[in-house]
Amino acid sequence: MESSLVELKRRLAEIDDLQRTQLLLAWDTEVWMPPAGERSRGAHLATLETIVHDRQIDDRIGELLDGLEPYASTLPRDADDACLVRAARRSWEKNRRIPTDLAAEIAGAQVESYQTWVKAREEAQFADFRPSLERVLELQRRLIECFAPYDDPYDVLLDDYEEGTKTEDVRVIFAALQPEITALVAEHAGEADQDDFLRGPFAIPPQEALSRELIERFGASWDAFRLDLTVHPFAAAVGLRDIRLTTRYDEDDLNSLFTAMHECGHGLYERGSAASLERTPLQGCSSSSLHESQSRLWENVVGRSLPFWRWLYPRVQTAFPEALADVSLERFHRAVNRPRRGFIRVDADETSYGLHVILRFELEQELLAGRLAVKDLPEAWNARFAELIGLDVPNDTLGVLQDSHWASGLFGYFPTYLLGTVLSVQIWETARAALPDVEEQIERGEFGDLHEWLRENLYALGSRFTPAETIERVVGGPIDPQPYLRYLRQKLNALSGSSV
Amino acid sequence: MESSLVELKRRLAEIDDLQRTQLLLAWDTEVWMPPAGERSRGAHLATLETIVHDRQIDDRIGELLDGLEPYASTLPRDADDACLVRAARRSWEKNRRIPTDLAAEIAGAQVESYQTWVKAREEAQFADFRPSLERVLELQRRLIECFAPYDDPYDVLLDDYEEGTKTEDVRVIFAALQPEITALVAEHAGEADQDDFLRGPFAIPPQEALSRELIERFGASWDAFRLDLTVHPFAAAVGLRDIRLTTRYDEDDLNSLFTAMHECGHGLYERGSAASLERTPLQGCSSSSLHESQSRLWENVVGRSLPFWRWLYPRVQTAFPEALADVSLERFHRAVNRPRRGFIRVDADETSYGLHVILRFELEQELLAGRLAVKDLPEAWNARFAELIGLDVPNDTLGVLQDSHWASGLFGYFPTYLLGTVLSVQIWETARAALPDVEEQIERGEFGDLHEWLRENLYALGSRFTPAETIERVVGGPIDPQPYLRYLRQKLNALSGSSV
Repeated sequence: MESSLVELKRRLAEIDDLQRTQLLLAWDTEVWMPPAGERSRGAHLATLETIVHDRQIDDRIGELLDGLEPYASTLPRDADDACLVRAARRSWEKNRRIPTDLAAEIAGAQVESYQTWVKAREEAQFADFRPSLERVLELQRRLIECFAPYDDPYDVLLDDYEEGTKTEDVRVIFAALQPEITALVAEHAGEADQDDFLRGPFAIPPQEALSRELIERFGASWDAFRLDLTVHPFAAAVGLRDIRLTTRYDEDDLNSLFTAMHECGHGLYERGSAASLERTPLQGCSSSSLHESQSRLWENVVGRSLPFWRWLYPRVQTAFPEALADVSLERFHRAVNRPRRGFIRVDADETSYGLHVILRFELEQELLAGRLAVKDLPEAWNARFAELIGLDVPNDTLGVLQDSHWASGLFGYFPTYLLGTVLSVQIWETARAALPDVEEQIERGEFGDLHEWLRENLYALGSRFTPAETIERVVGGPIDPQPYLRYLRQKLNALSGSSV
Repeated sequence: MESSLVELKRRLAEIDDLQRTQLLLAWDTEVWMPPAGERSRGAHLATLETIVHDRQIDDRIGELLDGLEPYASTLPRDADDACLVRAARRSWEKNRRIPTDLAAEIAGAQVESYQTWVKAREEAQFADFRPSLERVLELQRRLIECFAPYDDPYDVLLDDYEEGTKTEDVRVIFAALQPEITALVAEHAGEADQDDFLRGPFAIPPQEALSRELIERFGASWDAFRLDLTVHPFAAAVGLRDIRLTTRYDEDDLNSLFTAMHECGHGLYERGSAASLERTPLQGCSSSSLHESQSRLWENVVGRSLPFWRWLYPRVQTAFPEALADVSLERFHRAVNRPRRGFIRVDADETSYGLHVILRFELEQELLAGRLAVKDLPEAWNARFAELIGLDVPNDTLGVLQDSHWASGLFGYFPTYLLGTVLSVQIWETARAALPDVEEQIERGEFGDLHEWLRENLYALGSRFTPAETIERVVGGPIDPQPYLRYLRQKLNALSGSSV
């Protein structure tokens, strides 16, 4: 038994090494790779994926699991070895359904499609991206077919990001959210020319200095973190002590501060796994919703709160006098929380954000079900956007080309942003109940107790439990959209009640 | 036959993909990795090496080669398939001697020893580096034993960098060089305080702009190249169109310009392989001496020549007026060529450089043979340095800790720097004979014909032939120290004859 467990752990550790190597290559592709490196990078990723996949589906892992399951079943459900065997079984069974050639083709194709997307987005030419997207979609459809029969093709992809969640579960939650969010936006939305001071100018060097300081204050150490520039910000855990955050700066807005807090939330989650989980499939968080709950908690629940801005605003005002010298704390705080009809998801306010996600969730389902052709996607996007958000999309850069997810084959990921946003409020309310003076601490720029509570109660768990079990453990119940809606209503009412 | 060849090529292509992935990890380790990433990086590199090595020594490759060799023997020796089979056989036979565990241990240990070296070098504390170096050396000794019996333990390591060259061959060449170089340094060496203007100040931004311009002018395109900062400059070909150069800047000297030209030479060589060699063991140059011949040709034979400085000096003078406004072209050119007794190899002039290499070559042999213990290395370094170069080493940063090679396990590499320097002059003289107006072109800042000649006659060959065959093809004879000595004598005599 002992030696089977040692062998299983060794095999899983090597798979983890290779997957983190893939992450480093993916990070490098988006951050540093010279453009002509695309061709070899695709081959490198495809070869790595072939090896990873062959190892994941090795018969020997199945034999080891068969031998270990009787032992694991005698352990408490939260014992590390029981969690490991459960996670390894799930991964083995899922991956056995996917032919290695297909896995490698998907991995290799993403480099080309990502590069094509970057260029198409720059030039607002969806037509240039269309063949790549058609190929990505075709590969996703072939992937889905590996899991036939299924109730809903979307279930298959969603399960990769959110174990156990069904498309129908998401629909129910989104159906509860959408009319409420739409009503809140209608009631509180600002005019296009309101809060003009948010358009800068904001010099880049202080944006970068503030981003770095926030990341440090939240609890990251540069000994184990980096912050670099990309077209589309993301976070990648190349190792437990090697966390790569990426961001972007624009002189016309202050979104970089929120991006820094968002990616830092992802990074802290990955960095916070118990050291005993290192080089196992349990290191880091495998639920995208839980992951997003932390990016959204730090970005919004903390990072758009009044106590937070009471601490930071004087510094921000000093850093950008041209834009902000005459803007009071209250006006600034209201502006960064005011619902606003805008084109770009990652720049959206906390309220209207959900509508951007719902749009993508709906279009993804139609694309995968074959009810929408790629060639008709921009038109469908623009029509649905006008319906949901009430704006006419002027070009594809501000529309269908804005996100990198589809170029990277991440179909099924988008809904987890909104699920995570919902969870972020549930988790925050639990943390606040445990830390009665947390808001006073935030007002002093102190985030240590909050970080520590999250680390102990959430981050340290890694992927030991299913997402539903983890949520139950942390907040004492299932995912629930009501706390989030209540939080939004209270915040927006307080803002509209305050004097400017 | 056809299908065996296809299978062999597929297997070799995958090995190449993995090796270039290792190169990217190594590059990232030195350029971007946060320090605490060291532990996971070691595991990642060890796992990759396990896979690479297991694939390299796979019985199936031996079977495929056995089946293909009768076919390959019917081909002309310079046919691509014949070259491939020859190179694959050599690699297979060599790697079969090394146990996978040892290969993985060597790969994993280098991350720790490199990081330890960086810190020890900063603090001039050899004692902090000693345990790591002892471990590296022990691993190198175990590697050597895999190739017993051997005439000389050093032969085993040297063969990895210079196929077919024996330690005794190197000794003969170095024995011809050392007294002549020593005499030239004695005759022409400047005083310590001579050419003070070379100590700056040289602002970093124009150093970087000039470095980038030189790299472009020599023929690199940023579409396929990068230039980043490291403690110890190097070049890495992550792909045929993905070449990573690294450098460093110091306000107190202009060495960065020579470093840029040096690393660019390596990069152009890798970039210049025939496209048909991509993802085969023949892509890029596997002879370190030939590689160094190109870094040294661009750095010195071109980059310290009078025609070159006639072109560049006015720009350099304008960029650094505080240091150079009153310095004539002739004085500057003489200064960057004047032999000078200094501590740092990579900052050495073209003449005394060889003495730095000879020092390392001798100490490496003694370490590997067990005649010198690691604990006695600094003392031995300092004593030999005083003897060869005539200076007392004041601390280990300026002495035994200056190079990263030993930390990275690169025992056996150093002599190739001087062999390459010797070759650089032979190759230059061949190129100049073919391009009678090349010096006039250089004086106009035009390097296209030279680059093209080198690409066609050398770079495109990749590793199709043994180093000796390649040298014979390019210069029409074997390596010969006399052209280099003649070149040095002529240059130094011309300089001492010119008026300042």
